[in-house]
Amino acid sequence: MTTAHSPVSDRQRRVEDELVQAVLASFDDTPDPRLKEVMRSLTRHLHSFIREVRLTEAEWQYAIDFLTAAGRITTDHRQEFILLSDVLGTSMQTVNVNHEAAGHVTEATVLGPFFVAGAPVIPLGGDMAFGAPGEPCWVEGTVTDTDGDPVPGARLEVWEADEDGLYDVQRDDGRLAGRAHLYTDDQGGFTFWGLTPTPYPIPHDGPVGRLLGGTGRSPLRASHLHFMVTAPNMRTLITHIFVEGDRLLDSDAVFGVKESLVKRFAPQALDTPTPDGRDLSGRTWSRVRFDIVLTPSDALPAPGADTHALRA
Amino acid sequence: MTTAHSPVSDRQRRVEDELVQAVLASFDDTPDPRLKEVMRSLTRHLHSFIREVRLTEAEWQYAIDFLTAAGRITTDHRQEFILLSDVLGTSMQTVNVNHEAAGHVTEATVLGPFFVAGAPVIPLGGDMAFGAPGEPCWVEGTVTDTDGDPVPGARLEVWEADEDGLYDVQRDDGRLAGRAHLYTDDQGGFTFWGLTPTPYPIPHDGPVGRLLGGTGRSPLRASHLHFMVTAPNMRTLITHIFVEGDRLLDSDAVFGVKESLVKRFAPQALDTPTPDGRDLSGRTWSRVRFDIVLTPSDALPAPGADTHALRA
Repeated sequence: MTTAHSPVSDRQRRVEDELVQAVLASFDDTPDPRLKEVMRSLTRHLHSFIREVRLTEAEWQYAIDFLTAAGRITTDHRQEFILLSDVLGTSMQTVNVNHEAAGHVTEATVLGPFFVAGAPVIPLGGDMAFGAPGEPCWVEGTVTDTDGDPVPGARLEVWEADEDGLYDVQRDDGRLAGRAHLYTDDQGGFTFWGLTPTPYPIPHDGPVGRLLGGTGRSPLRASHLHFMVTAPNMRTLITHIFVEGDRLLDSDAVFGVKESLVKRFAPQALDTPTPDGRDLSGRTWSRVRFDIVLTPSDALPAPGADTHALRA
Repeated sequence: MTTAHSPVSDRQRRVEDELVQAVLASFDDTPDPRLKEVMRSLTRHLHSFIREVRLTEAEWQYAIDFLTAAGRITTDHRQEFILLSDVLGTSMQTVNVNHEAAGHVTEATVLGPFFVAGAPVIPLGGDMAFGAPGEPCWVEGTVTDTDGDPVPGARLEVWEADEDGLYDVQRDDGRLAGRAHLYTDDQGGFTFWGLTPTPYPIPHDGPVGRLLGGTGRSPLRASHLHFMVTAPNMRTLITHIFVEGDRLLDSDAVFGVKESLVKRFAPQALDTPTPDGRDLSGRTWSRVRFDIVLTPSDALPAPGADTHALRA
């Protein structure tokens, strides 16, 4: 549905075109050709947006105020600009563009704002919950390359929200919980205890939350468990696994769901024996399998990945 | 000049298209049709940008860091997001879209970040410099409507940088200088003393300045004097006048220059008598004429101006 706009006169169209051309020309002396390309494309698309919707000055001011409020709420532990990119699907589109769908390589999804470097190491079969509340979940799988050969010693970073819908860094008490790293064994296998993922809202007490509210959208994310997998000579994989049957699979607030990443978290009845003999008497638990296929780091170069970072 | 990108497979194009469609569909329940239109258009253009340049994840992270840094440097007296919009020409394009070129109505340009409400009133012929350093400039003109009839009692807000290239609010000493308001007389006439405008850089010690540096652009603005003109039943005019012969007219950092707004600031030799008998012996001064034509407030409704502000 679009609002009807008055037709734009030829004279007016010329004025607007000339401005676009002047801004494009201002980047003519950019030393880095990639930066020049990016800025020219950004300029064209932003101006097209403004002209297409005939953006009012009040709306422009709203955008300035929105970005200012996003800046004000952003801290080391709260990243409103990433949230904004996430809810516009632009984070996920960037992931798509850099991880072309190819063969049976495990698909990537968004990193999200809650990864923390330096989470503690756990042994195979260890518990990454570190006391975070939730139903225990046994996670097992393998890391292989595209030929099916195991990748021993691959490093898996895993992190997730607890059953209250919070990551440790969202608590005020400085706790470390629901995150760890571990390494695959000689056969590329891994096992660990985590939590059965539960849905949670992205932080929605800021401008991004107000945008979601104003557009009738839910801040809820489909239940998921985060993985980052690194191994020598392999392309780093950042992904999640999602829970089969979750009612939020089709309305994830950040558009992160891919069908191949939806897994069966098999519910285990009370007193079902655990794989490693862990005593969970009196509690239910679940188990899931996730077999990960990595691609060599030089097999699928991201378009533009050879370009040094923007130097501006 | 564009970087060559690898061709995108049909499968990959489908994946990217489907994401765009999912984001567009997420706005289906937006109650306000204008907000829905704006968000859908913004989504399409942002995704087109990312797909066109094949934005890398490092570049996406650069954008997040850029916005975060812009948020951090923004205060009540420093608005980095407005600067960003200004140097991308998007502020000026918004002005264009809302003030269609029409007849001989005085053209609008950007407000800029240095307007302050509540500047002191001065009488006709008064001095708005309030001690700001610079060469005195006699400014005179009229405010009329499109029929040529005078607009008495029109309120003119005028503000400008001093010869050090700074507005008063950029000083740390809380001074008020280089800004005032005044009213036209019964014939719509106005006169006041200001300063001959001089070029100055937009604040360039933040991320926007680094972007300008990285793209080989100058932070300098063409010399100018700001006006905001309001009168009952007339459309508010926000504009500048620029200095004929200024070498920066073609490279204004914020694309604010319009040919019709370039005026002759006639240099006055030492000891030239002043129009009002002010004693400027031993100093040069200049004079400029600016005749302003306002349009009735209902004559040229901005497209979308009847739409209430976005409610998100």
